[in-house]
Amino acid sequence: MKYLNKESFFISQFDSKLIGDDGAIINHEIIVGDAFFENVHFKRNWLSLNEIAYKSVAVNISDIYAMNAMPKFAILIIAIPKDFSKENLIELASGFKQAEKDFKFEIIGGDTIANNKLDISLTVIGKLIGKPLKRNGLKNKDFIAYTGIVGNSARDLDRLLKGWHISKKSIFVKPKLQFKFIKRSANLFSAGLDISDGLCSELSHLSKMSKIGINILKKFNRKIGCSGEEYQLLFGINPRNLKEVLAIGRATGTKINIIGRAIRGSRFKNKCKPNHF
Amino acid sequence: MKYLNKESFFISQFDSKLIGDDGAIINHEIIVGDAFFENVHFKRNWLSLNEIAYKSVAVNISDIYAMNAMPKFAILIIAIPKDFSKENLIELASGFKQAEKDFKFEIIGGDTIANNKLDISLTVIGKLIGKPLKRNGLKNKDFIAYTGIVGNSARDLDRLLKGWHISKKSIFVKPKLQFKFIKRSANLFSAGLDISDGLCSELSHLSKMSKIGINILKKFNRKIGCSGEEYQLLFGINPRNLKEVLAIGRATGTKINIIGRAIRGSRFKNKCKPNHF
Repeated sequence: MKYLNKESFFISQFDSKLIGDDGAIINHEIIVGDAFFENVHFKRNWLSLNEIAYKSVAVNISDIYAMNAMPKFAILIIAIPKDFSKENLIELASGFKQAEKDFKFEIIGGDTIANNKLDISLTVIGKLIGKPLKRNGLKNKDFIAYTGIVGNSARDLDRLLKGWHISKKSIFVKPKLQFKFIKRSANLFSAGLDISDGLCSELSHLSKMSKIGINILKKFNRKIGCSGEEYQLLFGINPRNLKEVLAIGRATGTKINIIGRAIRGSRFKNKCKPNHF
Repeated sequence: MKYLNKESFFISQFDSKLIGDDGAIINHEIIVGDAFFENVHFKRNWLSLNEIAYKSVAVNISDIYAMNAMPKFAILIIAIPKDFSKENLIELASGFKQAEKDFKFEIIGGDTIANNKLDISLTVIGKLIGKPLKRNGLKNKDFIAYTGIVGNSARDLDRLLKGWHISKKSIFVKPKLQFKFIKRSANLFSAGLDISDGLCSELSHLSKMSKIGINILKKFNRKIGCSGEEYQLLFGINPRNLKEVLAIGRATGTKINIIGRAIRGSRFKNKCKPNHF
């Protein structure tokens, strides 16, 4: 569950365990739910209907992977604009069907309604592969690292907001999830979460939930720290596992960026502005 | 999954098993998902925020009960208008918390976003109590019956649309779910589903899914047949179980209306207009 500004107050009304990991853990299942709403997460002229459907799934699968799980089933609640044509519906459905194939899960139910805009709510049920990756496991002296390249999503969002075009290969269009790397290395991590609200935001969650400070070893700029919707993995590693994790990174062709280390001290503070348009 | 007009075309793009029961069955779990969107399912001046939250849960729990299951967990994806005050959020949360208590389940995660209107998407995971109640089990000569009183929801919706007030006790405000009766009698039913789109609409689903005709024994008018959001249970009973089911009805104070009987022949046709404002 995300906690953005005023929404955190609503969530705070419930049992505090809601404000926790990327997904809820029930027995050996991981359950995640994310909204992907028009004019909140995307504008209709930014992405094709196929891309919108696909991305709405990918942002949920990212949470599943980040918990060290594999997706199995999904419930799709979708509000569709009244003026959509049959061709629109076919294109929209094709994005979901491609995602089902790529991520190896099945949409098993849900609800379809007519609405004034395209609003997708997806709940995904996954199965744990090994131990669940949580946000509260970071220990003193653990290294902190993230996968891949971070920073391009905000850049491309900025371009879209200026009315420019972006590449179809942009991770803003199609997030690059790191399943191979996570699957092989998650049991070596002390903590993990996906970078959905931005690197600095996730570092603050990690620090708060693990009740430990973070010493930044490698400075990064605001463009990297404040870029949301990156969907790379942020994780903690006990120093004795570092060599093995780096080897898995090399073996899977995954860039590993070591950026910090856990230290006793005050919590990491996120100074980015909220990521909304 | 509901199938209203054009939305049925979208759903038809997926595996046909989506167009089935009130919920999906995975092992001994039932999973249901329903949207409860502003200006689609309700207008903000019709219900208090507490009532909106509560009803968004009740319509899902109705599906869980109608499958012969008990709710356990829920994922709440909620889009909240930007201008909501802290008091609004407290009232909204209180409706969910009351529902958690009344229906004995727990909201374990989800997503909260800022939006232009109040749109609730809830996915509920339940546990089967006995055999699942499905739509395809109606057999030749089975009696067809529904619980309680049907027809008042459309009447009250009509009043609201005219700008009139309705009673806080209206089932349009707070659906009356028949858990006690269903729990004790579901194993005696051949089929079952909740009346969410209207009695005639559900009769047509039952007839289609069970591949059997329906002979109406007791005529009912359009006000009863076409009233959606009733959330009473429509079910089939083998004649040898009828006496026992009627006895459970009396014991639990549940009105049982026997309205028809399954016969070999053409499918029951729903002639109501879609239930939307």
